[in-house]
Amino acid sequence: MKLTSEQVEEIKDQQEQKNITKRVTSPDLERLLYEVIPILDHGFIRVVDYMGNDSSIVQAARVSYGKGTKKVSTDSGLIKYLMRHWHSTPFEMCEIKYHVKLPIFIARQWIRHRTANVNEYSARYSILDKEFYLPSEENLAAQSKSNRQGRGDVIEGEQAKKVLNLLKTDAERTYNNYEEMLNERYDGSVIEENKIGLARELARMNLTLNTYTQWYWKTDLLNLMNFLRLRADHHAQYEIRAYADAMLDTLKRWVPITYEAFMDYRVGGTEVSSKGKLIIQKLIKKENVTIEESGLSKREWNELMEAFNLKDKLI
Amino acid sequence: MKLTSEQVEEIKDQQEQKNITKRVTSPDLERLLYEVIPILDHGFIRVVDYMGNDSSIVQAARVSYGKGTKKVSTDSGLIKYLMRHWHSTPFEMCEIKYHVKLPIFIARQWIRHRTANVNEYSARYSILDKEFYLPSEENLAAQSKSNRQGRGDVIEGEQAKKVLNLLKTDAERTYNNYEEMLNERYDGSVIEENKIGLARELARMNLTLNTYTQWYWKTDLLNLMNFLRLRADHHAQYEIRAYADAMLDTLKRWVPITYEAFMDYRVGGTEVSSKGKLIIQKLIKKENVTIEESGLSKREWNELMEAFNLKDKLI
Amino acid sequence: MKLTSEQVEEIKDQQEQKNITKRVTSPDLERLLYEVIPILDHGFIRVVDYMGNDSSIVQAARVSYGKGTKKVSTDSGLIKYLMRHWHSTPFEMCEIKYHVKLPIFIARQWIRHRTANVNEYSARYSILDKEFYLPSEENLAAQSKSNRQGRGDVIEGEQAKKVLNLLKTDAERTYNNYEEMLNERYDGSVIEENKIGLARELARMNLTLNTYTQWYWKTDLLNLMNFLRLRADHHAQYEIRAYADAMLDTLKRWVPITYEAFMDYRVGGTEVSSKGKLIIQKLIKKENVTIEESGLSKREWNELMEAFNLKDKLI
Amino acid sequence: MKLTSEQVEEIKDQQEQKNITKRVTSPDLERLLYEVIPILDHGFIRVVDYMGNDSSIVQAARVSYGKGTKKVSTDSGLIKYLMRHWHSTPFEMCEIKYHVKLPIFIARQWIRHRTANVNEYSARYSILDKEFYLPSEENLAAQSKSNRQGRGDVIEGEQAKKVLNLLKTDAERTYNNYEEMLNERYDGSVIEENKIGLARELARMNLTLNTYTQWYWKTDLLNLMNFLRLRADHHAQYEIRAYADAMLDTLKRWVPITYEAFMDYRVGGTEVSSKGKLIIQKLIKKENVTIEESGLSKREWNELMEAFNLKDKLI
Repeated sequence: MKLTSEQVEEIKDQQEQKNITKRVTSPDLERLLYEVIPILDHGFIRVVDYMGNDSSIVQAARVSYGKGTKKVSTDSGLIKYLMRHWHSTPFEMCEIKYHVKLPIFIARQWIRHRTANVNEYSARYSILDKEFYLPSEENLAAQSKSNRQGRGDVIEGEQAKKVLNLLKTDAERTYNNYEEMLNERYDGSVIEENKIGLARELARMNLTLNTYTQWYWKTDLLNLMNFLRLRADHHAQYEIRAYADAMLDTLKRWVPITYEAFMDYRVGGTEVSSKGKLIIQKLIKKENVTIEESGLSKREWNELMEAFNLKDKLI
Repeated sequence: MKLTSEQVEEIKDQQEQKNITKRVTSPDLERLLYEVIPILDHGFIRVVDYMGNDSSIVQAARVSYGKGTKKVSTDSGLIKYLMRHWHSTPFEMCEIKYHVKLPIFIARQWIRHRTANVNEYSARYSILDKEFYLPSEENLAAQSKSNRQGRGDVIEGEQAKKVLNLLKTDAERTYNNYEEMLNERYDGSVIEENKIGLARELARMNLTLNTYTQWYWKTDLLNLMNFLRLRADHHAQYEIRAYADAMLDTLKRWVPITYEAFMDYRVGGTEVSSKGKLIIQKLIKKENVTIEESGLSKREWNELMEAFNLKDKLI
Repeated sequence: MKLTSEQVEEIKDQQEQKNITKRVTSPDLERLLYEVIPILDHGFIRVVDYMGNDSSIVQAARVSYGKGTKKVSTDSGLIKYLMRHWHSTPFEMCEIKYHVKLPIFIARQWIRHRTANVNEYSARYSILDKEFYLPSEENLAAQSKSNRQGRGDVIEGEQAKKVLNLLKTDAERTYNNYEEMLNERYDGSVIEENKIGLARELARMNLTLNTYTQWYWKTDLLNLMNFLRLRADHHAQYEIRAYADAMLDTLKRWVPITYEAFMDYRVGGTEVSSKGKLIIQKLIKKENVTIEESGLSKREWNELMEAFNLKDKLI
Repeated sequence: MKLTSEQVEEIKDQQEQKNITKRVTSPDLERLLYEVIPILDHGFIRVVDYMGNDSSIVQAARVSYGKGTKKVSTDSGLIKYLMRHWHSTPFEMCEIKYHVKLPIFIARQWIRHRTANVNEYSARYSILDKEFYLPSEENLAAQSKSNRQGRGDVIEGEQAKKVLNLLKTDAERTYNNYEEMLNERYDGSVIEENKIGLARELARMNLTLNTYTQWYWKTDLLNLMNFLRLRADHHAQYEIRAYADAMLDTLKRWVPITYEAFMDYRVGGTEVSSKGKLIIQKLIKKENVTIEESGLSKREWNELMEAFNLKDKLI
């Protein structure tokens, strides 16, 4: 993670601000504001702005349900109720903005979450930094045999060395040729005087997908949770999960009550289908239940048993 | 439900179309196309256009997952898999458009689903029809004592008569005064020659919220299911549920495989929180579990037991 | 505009906050924060939260365009450039939240702007306030003869009195019957002991469309400007324009540089079609141009001439 | 552009469909349906589904404006009116779906249009095709001196050869190493038996940004026009403009009346700011006007004069 001296200066300026506001604040998040949280080898996230806190959710819910919310006596009780019953709009009343540095192939996954606002560094205008993601050795996983989108065992020894070497060499060579075609180095220096360079919007096509990019990414709390639910999950690719995990920590600082409800009902929860409910019910009542009569496929059966940690029922 | 003679004519023309297309079709839905399906006392829905069918979902999933989908051998298996794992984008590949006539207070609930396209009859431009929703006697429910947004027992006898009479009289009187202020009747005839009428955009404010409006409403399959999941639920207000139920039937005709998966995993399914999973697990293992140590509120405990139909565990 | 004593108390508490934040602030808007700005007879807007200021737009643009923005030396120059060339994403980096009290028929127009977050007071849960919009005499306009969605001359004298009387009487009667059916007054007092009331979700249908509702409404700066461009326009209905005008003032306090660019390029600007450009060009070159050979309809011709204030060219 | 034999077969099957439908059709577009339209060296677009035609826009507008639309006598007149006055919702009633093959760096621009539905080929699941975009010689442009995001003169001779050679060699080498790391070729054949390959989700990071990907992309007519307005513009990067131009042709076949209005009011039109209007007005009235008193920057002045093709006024 290389920050330019301008960026270091800017962050310092941002952190020294002491403004008076009548808006609600989130003191735990304020402490972290603008700070660089390193992710992977060269990436980072920084929280650069936010709006609202747990009380904003409660306030919005109370305007909606009016006197109807009086029965839920505490803020915590109300937020848990909203989460449990999938009330969405009160959680949209809070907003957060991140500055993120991330490899392009991860940016391509991330951008699929459409309900966010994005300003990305444009390689049509400017030269990208000379930084590429290279997995650490313990993350150099083989293709899973059983799961087409998953990872299997870690690749080790000579093969690992070779893979890392290929990734590094190819990224560097393509980057060097990118500079060559531009006739300009990443620091802005001209390579050969009196020679024209290829248009930036074309030259960038020579870069590999592990090149780092950066963006400002802003979203509301509801959509942040939708993002985290998918991307902090163990099915998500390790590299995006690394970002999601760090963002989970910012969520906890920002809206601690919501965070707790989110972990209980969303992240730690599970869904049971209509057929699954019948099976669970029979298991509780000690009635006989077999996969044959359940209507479930073997895969679905096992997913259900794993959700409730019933290892002895796996087939 | 009064259709103008122009509308009757238009529907007849639409239904007589026999166009040749290379697009996929949904024969069961074609049979219903343009037909008026009556809802409540004067409302209706009509399916007026659609795009795609079950095969479009499969096709989109197969482009995404490439050879990765080969293991799921059937279309039905693939659609069930997508539904179970909350894959959303393949379901966005189908689109449907309804023509709906509905009371304004229901339209106000409905419009909160933002990811849809809407063209509503404008009372700034034109005079609204003289039609109001009046509940049938069996739907004249009292306020629930236990649930602030719910209905309790049916109101009967003299009180019922009185309520219906008030609703009817007020709607008619305010409508008559609406015409009076406009100096124009709903059929376009002028009331008093040589007199100017109040602007339509102002006069409409005198109408009651049970006046019927109409709109074209278009959405993709994913968002239709989100709508139906909330609005065909027993917590939804009866009047919007009446529309949702009729739309569930159009869903079944349009994408029968998706419909089945939707009913199993969404409508008939349930969610269990992290704490709830532990309780279920203990119940299956015949371990002792009490509400005190569960970390659940009484309300939450009962919701969990009801989800699995464990009446004897309600407290 | 009646505020409950709880609301008055809440606003006082909000205004007394003095929090320290590292976030950017907008001092002119801070001064106005939480304050009630009266609109129409009983409505209001209040800015209850915001995120970002002019500098946030510049910051986002500079991350996008990198060194490419160096040529635009000032923040003001950059924001004007972005506005002129319809760059949208930097303006999405700011967010604002209003508390609004407004008549239902205006709420129905307003809600059509879908890219916003809304929490509305729910008449399923709670009883609506006894407040209705009644136009002031100078806003009691007749239907326009020439424009189906417009207003013509003001209605005066006896007819005006009669209209206002009808609006007032109908709103009050339907509200009284609403209470009657609920068996409960707006202040929560029960009308007749030992009698059940009609469900709130049903009783509300008896209210007229000028009844006031309220909501929290949150949007980003780009979508706020889209809203204001349409709703502060002279084609917009007077009643929503009253809100939009007050919001324009909050825009000016919040992001003064953006406000200026918005007024110049959007509100005060015009669009010229391909055919229109040719006509303007010929007019400048003193070439002959007639409506016949222009390809424009009479209406379109006049719209063009009016846009450039060329009264002598109207036909 | 290599199509697999399965794809060729699938397209043939799709084109042979002759289904009967009561839905409206667009005969000119039907003729093109499913057909491969080649773009760049290996890319393509195919229209794979659509919903509605010009008549659907008219129908939606007529439900909105009711009798208010009677004055606009023809469909063409109504659509032109809607376009001129930026009415958006009627154009949302039509939907189209494309199958697109495109280089990743173009896909990254394209995806920024958020109001569309997308299913992209996933390199987590499957191996990407061995196809890279290489510019043709006449598109090998140098960086513009005056415009940081623009292209200047064409690069020719030895330098051109060298650039093309670098692009080709780097893309091929990184692709070969991608296969090497996967231990699998693009045709699915294993390279070395008894050796595990790197996970696909990791190996893909070695590919260059000119590698082709593909997706299904579905959007409504309004958002398609927003896309085309930006991407068929001469400021857009040539490579995405190539796609936009081909899509313009499909627009013309699909909704010919809308297409014509779009070309006149959007593509061929211009916007004039408040200050610009005054200048135009003075020019028409032969009043004196100088840049100094205009309040415009030199750049803005020239943009205005160019919009009206007033070459002699450029400064």
